[in-house]
Amino acid sequence: MSLLRGKLITFEGIDGAGKSTHLAWVADFLQNQGLEVVVTREPGGTVLGEALRELLLDHRQTMHAETEALLMFAARREHLDKVILSALQRGAWVVSDRFTDASFAYQGGGRGVPLAKLEKLEQWCLEDFSPDLTLYFDVPVAISRQRVQAARTTDRFEQESDLFFERVRQAYLQRVAEFPDRIRVVEGSLPLATVKTAVAAIVENFWSAQAKEN
Amino acid sequence: MSLLRGKLITFEGIDGAGKSTHLAWVADFLQNQGLEVVVTREPGGTVLGEALRELLLDHRQTMHAETEALLMFAARREHLDKVILSALQRGAWVVSDRFTDASFAYQGGGRGVPLAKLEKLEQWCLEDFSPDLTLYFDVPVAISRQRVQAARTTDRFEQESDLFFERVRQAYLQRVAEFPDRIRVVEGSLPLATVKTAVAAIVENFWSAQAKEN
Ligand SMILES: Nc1ncnc2c1ncn2[C@@H]1O[C@H](COP(=O)(O)OP(=O)(O)O)[C@@H](O)[C@H]1O
Ligand SMILES: Nc1ncnc2c1ncn2[C@@H]1O[C@H](COP(=O)(O)OP(=O)(O)O)[C@@H](O)[C@H]1O
Ligand SMILES: [Mg+2]
Ligand SMILES: [Mg+2]
Repeated sequence: MSLLRGKLITFEGIDGAGKSTHLAWVADFLQNQGLEVVVTREPGGTVLGEALRELLLDHRQTMHAETEALLMFAARREHLDKVILSALQRGAWVVSDRFTDASFAYQGGGRGVPLAKLEKLEQWCLEDFSPDLTLYFDVPVAISRQRVQAARTTDRFEQESDLFFERVRQAYLQRVAEFPDRIRVVEGSLPLATVKTAVAAIVENFWSAQAKEN
Repeated sequence: MSLLRGKLITFEGIDGAGKSTHLAWVADFLQNQGLEVVVTREPGGTVLGEALRELLLDHRQTMHAETEALLMFAARREHLDKVILSALQRGAWVVSDRFTDASFAYQGGGRGVPLAKLEKLEQWCLEDFSPDLTLYFDVPVAISRQRVQAARTTDRFEQESDLFFERVRQAYLQRVAEFPDRIRVVEGSLPLATVKTAVAAIVENFWSAQAKEN
């Protein structure tokens, strides 16, 4: 993938962990470095992907866990083709609210699709493509739930049990252990200003390492 | 799959080949043998699958060929889980207007997704499950087009070029060569009554072989 001149930064974590809150700041920071920044999200990011997002989050839709995984990766394949690759090729930096780690956490940890099976699907869809940097916002499930309930109505995932989210969180932590260079953990339960400082340190650090390389 | 007591018969072929016309007769014939018969179709067959069918056939939706393949298999995974397996388990016979061969023909032959790649996706979604009998209606592209234009407005696939359908047809014929025991070819360009006689012979033959086994 040597033709890619931009970088992909992904934000991961269960709902209420702080992804959306800090994503805006990161996008601003990168823009202030003179970069073109594309902000996007999963599932979604394309017209088709947003239609799939509606199906996936609609709480009237029940579906087999493997169907859910296939739809997530279908939306991701499209996202890659229509948004991410072309942006990276022209040198833009892409900041995505969730990406493949979320499938391992939600469809794997949460719904129980074997991780080895998800790896096959990842390989089918993405080959060796992966984010350059991932910020994983880690919070206990109880805090996630408090924050989400205060903020908005719940979708098909958010209505799941604490046990479900505990499995999702554990699967995220397993990803962190597997990809320690790519995934950086942010303690999302700390006060907002503390979290922001941590996020800023990670992103500024990554940015200056990149700037030195070029 | 020894728990499956019913049989799955699939109908394949390009548009206008005669699938819908003859499917009704086959369902009637099986019902007259005292069987429970489930008539279904792909993409579709479930609430989610029909929603995906709309996205897939909508001519405003452009999508990557691999996205299309993933969505087809997502709908199929759901179809298997919600409709086909439970029907077969309770002893019903399932008659489906298209199934996996169509993905090899359309996304493989038509759109150019490598057949080996589609085989991986098939394995991911279906493991070793396959139809018990497939009727492939073979017609030249020119006849297909005449019949479709006379009959109705066209969807995203039907608007493709003759060259596209020629590739689809060749991919179907390749499937026939690969699975000669399962897939039976019906000359769909012959007069309706002749085609019906050929379909009847195949299905009656299959049915009496099954009846003898039990
Ligand atoms: N560190 C924090 N301390 C207190 N509240 C927070 C913190 N981070 C996020 N929140 C609040 O929690 C809610 C969910 O945050 P959000 O960024 O939308 O999470 P996510 O996008 O990960 O679901 C918002 O109301 C946000 O203001
Ligand atoms: N053997 C045949 N000879 C003449 N017309 C046919 C024949 N088979 C089908 N048709 C006509 O062609 C059109 C398409 O047939 P249909 O069964 O809907 O095809 P499919 O379901 O494979 O797209 C219909 O109007 C049908 O009456
Ligand atoms: Mg958010
Ligand atoms: Mg038809």
